[in-house]
Amino acid sequence: MPYFDAASAAPLHPVARQALQASLDEGWADPARLYREGRRARLLLDAAREAAADAVGCRPDELVFTPSGTRAVHSGIAGALAGRRRVGGHLVVSAVEHSSVLHAAAAHETAGGSVTEVPVDRRGAVEPAAYAAALREDTALACLQSANHEVGTVQPVAEVAEACRAVGVPLLVDAAQSLAWGPVEGAWSLLAASAHKWGGPAGVGLLAVRKGQRFAAQGPVDERESGRSPGFENIPAIVAAAASLRAVRTEAAAEAARLRALVELIRARVPELVPDVEVVGDPVARLPHVVTFSCLYVDGETVLHELDRAGFSVSSGSSCTSSTLTPSHVLRAMGVLSEGNVRVSLPFGTTAEDVELFLEVLPGVVGGVRERLGVPVAAVARPARDAVVVDALGKRCPIPVIELAKVIGEVPVGGTVTVLADDEAARLDIPAWCEMRGQEYVGEEPADRGSAYVVRRLS
Amino acid sequence: MPYFDAASAAPLHPVARQALQASLDEGWADPARLYREGRRARLLLDAAREAAADAVGCRPDELVFTPSGTRAVHSGIAGALAGRRRVGGHLVVSAVEHSSVLHAAAAHETAGGSVTEVPVDRRGAVEPAAYAAALREDTALACLQSANHEVGTVQPVAEVAEACRAVGVPLLVDAAQSLAWGPVEGAWSLLAASAHKWGGPAGVGLLAVRKGQRFAAQGPVDERESGRSPGFENIPAIVAAAASLRAVRTEAAAEAARLRALVELIRARVPELVPDVEVVGDPVARLPHVVTFSCLYVDGETVLHELDRAGFSVSSGSSCTSSTLTPSHVLRAMGVLSEGNVRVSLPFGTTAEDVELFLEVLPGVVGGVRERLGVPVAAVARPARDAVVVDALGKRCPIPVIELAKVIGEVPVGGTVTVLADDEAARLDIPAWCEMRGQEYVGEEPADRGSAYVVRRLS
Repeated sequence: MPYFDAASAAPLHPVARQALQASLDEGWADPARLYREGRRARLLLDAAREAAADAVGCRPDELVFTPSGTRAVHSGIAGALAGRRRVGGHLVVSAVEHSSVLHAAAAHETAGGSVTEVPVDRRGAVEPAAYAAALREDTALACLQSANHEVGTVQPVAEVAEACRAVGVPLLVDAAQSLAWGPVEGAWSLLAASAHKWGGPAGVGLLAVRKGQRFAAQGPVDERESGRSPGFENIPAIVAAAASLRAVRTEAAAEAARLRALVELIRARVPELVPDVEVVGDPVARLPHVVTFSCLYVDGETVLHELDRAGFSVSSGSSCTSSTLTPSHVLRAMGVLSEGNVRVSLPFGTTAEDVELFLEVLPGVVGGVRERLGVPVAAVARPARDAVVVDALGKRCPIPVIELAKVIGEVPVGGTVTVLADDEAARLDIPAWCEMRGQEYVGEEPADRGSAYVVRRLS
Repeated sequence: MPYFDAASAAPLHPVARQALQASLDEGWADPARLYREGRRARLLLDAAREAAADAVGCRPDELVFTPSGTRAVHSGIAGALAGRRRVGGHLVVSAVEHSSVLHAAAAHETAGGSVTEVPVDRRGAVEPAAYAAALREDTALACLQSANHEVGTVQPVAEVAEACRAVGVPLLVDAAQSLAWGPVEGAWSLLAASAHKWGGPAGVGLLAVRKGQRFAAQGPVDERESGRSPGFENIPAIVAAAASLRAVRTEAAAEAARLRALVELIRARVPELVPDVEVVGDPVARLPHVVTFSCLYVDGETVLHELDRAGFSVSSGSSCTSSTLTPSHVLRAMGVLSEGNVRVSLPFGTTAEDVELFLEVLPGVVGGVRERLGVPVAAVARPARDAVVVDALGKRCPIPVIELAKVIGEVPVGGTVTVLADDEAARLDIPAWCEMRGQEYVGEEPADRGSAYVVRRLS
């Protein structure tokens, strides 16, 4: 049963399991105590900190363990902003950060701070010059992920870090998706990561703060973790996290080459096997294990459900999955198709057979969903009308785009189709459909309900 | 090698270990995902929540898991205060709360709120009427521990909760020390606890918030744990925490009776075996497994070190342990002796043999330390002087008290000894010595350096 959602959570690495088991006996006591059980726990904690710092590329006294990557991001952003309060209250983030960064940015705005979101291109990357241009005299902190969690695009961290350093702004890097593969290059000031992304146990994040970086931990603190992460340390999990990070690093180069080949296979074959697919993310500067594509005329929820029935666990940034009504902010910021979105992220050890099997199953799954939704297979010649209006009000993704595709053949080249829709995904997916199908997206006009999206037939 | 510091952290319960191992395979995936690994994780999380809620005595949807008891306390206090911001910014706590509560109170004060600390009596308990008198029209929240972590005294939670309910103030109960033994009685509004106190793994706390209680989670949040505890859930640890809570509860009544007898033995025998000892905490209304006493004329650090060498792991609230220069705030609030303080907290399964062994070893340990410090064994008749001044400036606990004991015999009954001291512990320990030895503590006077503590010989 292939699990292809390592970017959400990787299965526990065997080394993590061994280390966890062993340290349950040695690491349960309070490391602040002076008796033997406390001293043993302290030794384990110190050794784990050294191993993790070595993998991150920082000093052990620059690194603290937190209860999760999310908490590391929250604490890192709050502490760095407070430490530079005198400089100002401006925060810069990319538009495609993990939600933990965007939630922290929103909390900062609620508290009276200001936030600039640096846009990304269609590949999902920030442009270093554009990022640099967002830095201001009152910028207290800048944040940039090392690589995107939804589409795998690697960000130009070293260039952005250099631009930040040039104007004295600290850069916090969310390295959650990339730390398994290697340290983050460049002159970052703070770094956050999450153990369960690299095969460590849940319950462990890490936050590195470079010496000399102004930092004022927010909220109540205690004497734990240099006053930066309150609460009793979870030492067995910390030991397992550090041990598995070290283990995955020894395998990283070989495994990256192997998984990259499998990802290349998916990127190349999916558009051949499934019509009307957009593969998203940078084709070259990308994580070795993540590949994302979107399929016209299907909804993400049904595709995920059908793939799950076929034995494949994948993720989606579509609006019509789980409880969300809006497409993923990452796909939106990239301006790419969101409907029928599928993210495949391969855990360490994924076999070529499993990927081949996935490629066998996928076309039937997507085709089946399209058939049930009545997607037009080919345009039928009909009496031409210069302009057609399609009412898709109240219809959810992917119906508005399907309705558009059904009628585009009814207008002559040069004629227009206007789609009335109130589904949030239409704003992203109708222009994306136009780009994929070589039609002209004229624009969006206000309407009594929802919006009117105007498309001109070019071919 | 007996470990007698269960109040800091209990060794992992066998049931916790089993549950943790089993759920490492089933509970590592993201419970928010719809594929089978996610659904399995969600089922485990839901079942753990039901079990924990049952043990706490609340509804499952009232309970969230947090990364530690400390974080549960911090989140609970911040959320309850913010939820009742319109009522006012006044917080009531007892003077002997766990440091996590006092740290949260300090953060609230820093942010502009006001805090009232309700004092305790010599046994360490708040007086319900005094607690009720501290509640004001602008009181947003009141906090009271179920039982004290240093001296074991059980607090009158039900009476205080009733007083709070009468004036519409929510009561947050820190139940960290007592939840293993049973649910907290009374009409509490919020409750916090910590799994590693009951033999669960580190990394799991719980926060219960009664339905209808106004609550506004502070800081950035996400969709996890009802928006009250951000970050990826640590499901294997949560499962282990819930399973071990259920397990210890089935053993609780029998084990409480057994450990209570052992604690009674220690409480009765230590003053017989060791001269100049004060056993502290309520003699009756107390936790079954905690006993605390203080030994005149010794320092806590050395006693702990010698007990550790003899194989016993205990804790101390003395000022002269670890890195602290002030005696525990609990002993200070109680007004009892802090020097030579020893807390014994027995884990589940402690044998009578281990306790007997402790009682065999203790007199020699304390006697040895006293001998090395040159403690006077009996007063020697000397020429009487009406008033003696002892300069103990720069001397740390227990030296000022030892110096006092050395010279009290040199003044006639009715004469005074003035001790000059700048050690913080002297303020607590000199009056406590007077009470123990039947001498009169006249008072404290300012001095060029430190303070002058005046003692009148009565016998």
